[in-house]
Amino acid sequence: MIEAELISIGDELLIGQTVNTNASWLGQQLAAIGIRVIHTAVTTDEPKAIVSAFDAAFDRASLIIVTGGLGPTKDDITKHVLCDYFDTELVMNEPILEHITSFFTKRNRPMLEVNRLQAALPEACTVLFNRQGTAAGMWFDRGEKVLISMPGVPYEMKSIFSEEALPKIRERFQTVGLYHRTLLTQGVGESFLAEALSDWENRLRADGLGLAYLPSPGMVKLRITAYAGESDAAKVDMYLSEAKQALPVAAYGEEEETLQEVVGTLLRERGLTIGTVESCTGGAITALLTSISGSSDYVQGGLVTYSNRLKHELAHVRLETLETFGAVSEETVEEMALGGRKKLGVDWCISVSGVAGPTGGSEEKPVGTVWIGIASPTAFWSKQFSFGDHRERNVQMSVLAALNFVRCALLGIIPEKKQH
Amino acid sequence: MIEAELISIGDELLIGQTVNTNASWLGQQLAAIGIRVIHTAVTTDEPKAIVSAFDAAFDRASLIIVTGGLGPTKDDITKHVLCDYFDTELVMNEPILEHITSFFTKRNRPMLEVNRLQAALPEACTVLFNRQGTAAGMWFDRGEKVLISMPGVPYEMKSIFSEEALPKIRERFQTVGLYHRTLLTQGVGESFLAEALSDWENRLRADGLGLAYLPSPGMVKLRITAYAGESDAAKVDMYLSEAKQALPVAAYGEEEETLQEVVGTLLRERGLTIGTVESCTGGAITALLTSISGSSDYVQGGLVTYSNRLKHELAHVRLETLETFGAVSEETVEEMALGGRKKLGVDWCISVSGVAGPTGGSEEKPVGTVWIGIASPTAFWSKQFSFGDHRERNVQMSVLAALNFVRCALLGIIPEKKQH
Repeated sequence: MIEAELISIGDELLIGQTVNTNASWLGQQLAAIGIRVIHTAVTTDEPKAIVSAFDAAFDRASLIIVTGGLGPTKDDITKHVLCDYFDTELVMNEPILEHITSFFTKRNRPMLEVNRLQAALPEACTVLFNRQGTAAGMWFDRGEKVLISMPGVPYEMKSIFSEEALPKIRERFQTVGLYHRTLLTQGVGESFLAEALSDWENRLRADGLGLAYLPSPGMVKLRITAYAGESDAAKVDMYLSEAKQALPVAAYGEEEETLQEVVGTLLRERGLTIGTVESCTGGAITALLTSISGSSDYVQGGLVTYSNRLKHELAHVRLETLETFGAVSEETVEEMALGGRKKLGVDWCISVSGVAGPTGGSEEKPVGTVWIGIASPTAFWSKQFSFGDHRERNVQMSVLAALNFVRCALLGIIPEKKQH
Repeated sequence: MIEAELISIGDELLIGQTVNTNASWLGQQLAAIGIRVIHTAVTTDEPKAIVSAFDAAFDRASLIIVTGGLGPTKDDITKHVLCDYFDTELVMNEPILEHITSFFTKRNRPMLEVNRLQAALPEACTVLFNRQGTAAGMWFDRGEKVLISMPGVPYEMKSIFSEEALPKIRERFQTVGLYHRTLLTQGVGESFLAEALSDWENRLRADGLGLAYLPSPGMVKLRITAYAGESDAAKVDMYLSEAKQALPVAAYGEEEETLQEVVGTLLRERGLTIGTVESCTGGAITALLTSISGSSDYVQGGLVTYSNRLKHELAHVRLETLETFGAVSEETVEEMALGGRKKLGVDWCISVSGVAGPTGGSEEKPVGTVWIGIASPTAFWSKQFSFGDHRERNVQMSVLAALNFVRCALLGIIPEKKQH
């Protein structure tokens, strides 16, 4: 398998003023054609540091992709370091000079000497044309290995990579694509998943496939990889669907799907409308549902009943219920969901009430206790959750849990609490 | 100056499934205490690659910070590599085992053997407690140099770094803090700010201070730095308050303040309650207002009137108004804000209606057109905004604009549209 290394040059990345999204984008592009990135580095814009990163990369990898340090200002030294490194000299490239000149003419901006000098490029390189800007990309051969240098501005880099570098890389390295599939789960921890899928994982690995658990709050992604590329695609697909069948409640989707998309699709397919009555989540569920373009087809709206007064006045939760059972209780979320369904005139309604924290917890209902309710035209579902101490994460977990809960209720794969 | 190196471990970073935000966050934290990150690396989770990254880092830097590879599953090998590297052994750490046990007990989740094994930690390290999760951090000394290992989950890493690692780093390396102040602005672009503050910036730089513009959608942070440390603090403070006075509408806060905190403080000081009637923002304003602990003192709740039917039924916007002027109009947000004030029984009410996109725009009201209204007990404010083509960013910009608008209205620094 071809191995690649990415090097980004720039202090702004090291002090965290810019997030290195170029590295993740390039990692994705290379993975898609079966080139494995084995190392990425960010260095200062000092010649010694850059040369040392080049040396280390040539030791490890066959393809080295460098971004950054090609601007017109004094602190951009990559081109000069490359000339020294490949023992070559800058020569004025006339087609690139014409491109730069027309770039400034079109924009009615004065062209300065520093801009003209951007057309002076190392004699030993193959120039990679930059349609989006004035800093050209450069391709250097060293025996069987290749170093590509591109500007750090993301849209310029992406344009050069896709249009100029990628076709040359595919040709040069005779690449075969890796084959990935990702299963998305909600509501179960990484270690629980690993235990539940332990036999499956052993078989998968024995079959020469790779598996990675990628956790984030409330979610775990399971990524299955076929290193042999498309020829193992059928095996990957089979393992994916096996895991999906084994975890019908947790496994909500695949690849880049989001819960709000999955729920939206289920509602649209069934011609149903939805509304919400939110307390501790403060509108975040509705905001996520409406983040999908076209969600007005099924989202009518919602009530944020943060105070008990509004739980009563807007969602018609009885004062008696609030007094007897408290705002965070099954009885309250039931009346919120049923009251919300009527008030909002919707088919389905989600209700949430919980102790987000960090204060407001009690022994009986500690911080992180959240009740979620769902009302459909014929039934009611409810479930108590226990998250943690962290306010922001409690809200985030409640939102995801509510969306997955309504997904399962819509699919009829969890038992209702009662029918009405 | 102390030099640091960051190493992240994980294939998910190399193939671009996860963006390395840990590196930028750590770069910022270290820069703030005068430690310079000179290199960051991402390696695969293979022992050889990890060891080689450790070796290279110890050659270059005094402080090495490693993130990732500490989870409970088989592909998490950092702890074992560290044991070999520092020639030590895993021993069961009883306090950490208790912490992990209570972590699972509190969440009503079964604790598995793999979780128990997370409490087995290298004998030679100083354990850094992880309040947010089950993977402890580790601090290793090697002569004058230090290596710190933390989990890759951002919120766990941040908690360990801030609470456990940072105080020890400051003590060990005797860091002299740079002195920073940050002014937060909303609603004006970076180049507009640079123009408006051009004289101020020249004076500031002539005084030997540094200035950085840190833009994010809808916001620009201005960071002023005294390289001489505390001795230049008074100068920095003076420039900060000068800029703040020059930009009363845009400059909403300082340092780590958020708009939702600033607005919350103004409401609490004045003993006022607030509610919302949201359309295109779908509940996101209310969610942000209630993200502050204690916000129930002033947030009563809100109406998400996504459909026109609910704008009429819940907020009592007249059908005539919706027909004549459309849902995205000054007239509609006025009736939404006034109707919401009554319906929710609150002192102040924010209303928002806009074309979030990517569809639904017209020549007269293109995608990105957003009307925001504010009703107080005595007056009404409104303003039209034009954001862009990007749905998610339109919502984000609308939320920030609405919060800054209500801040200015509460402070009485923008003229009302009418009194009632």
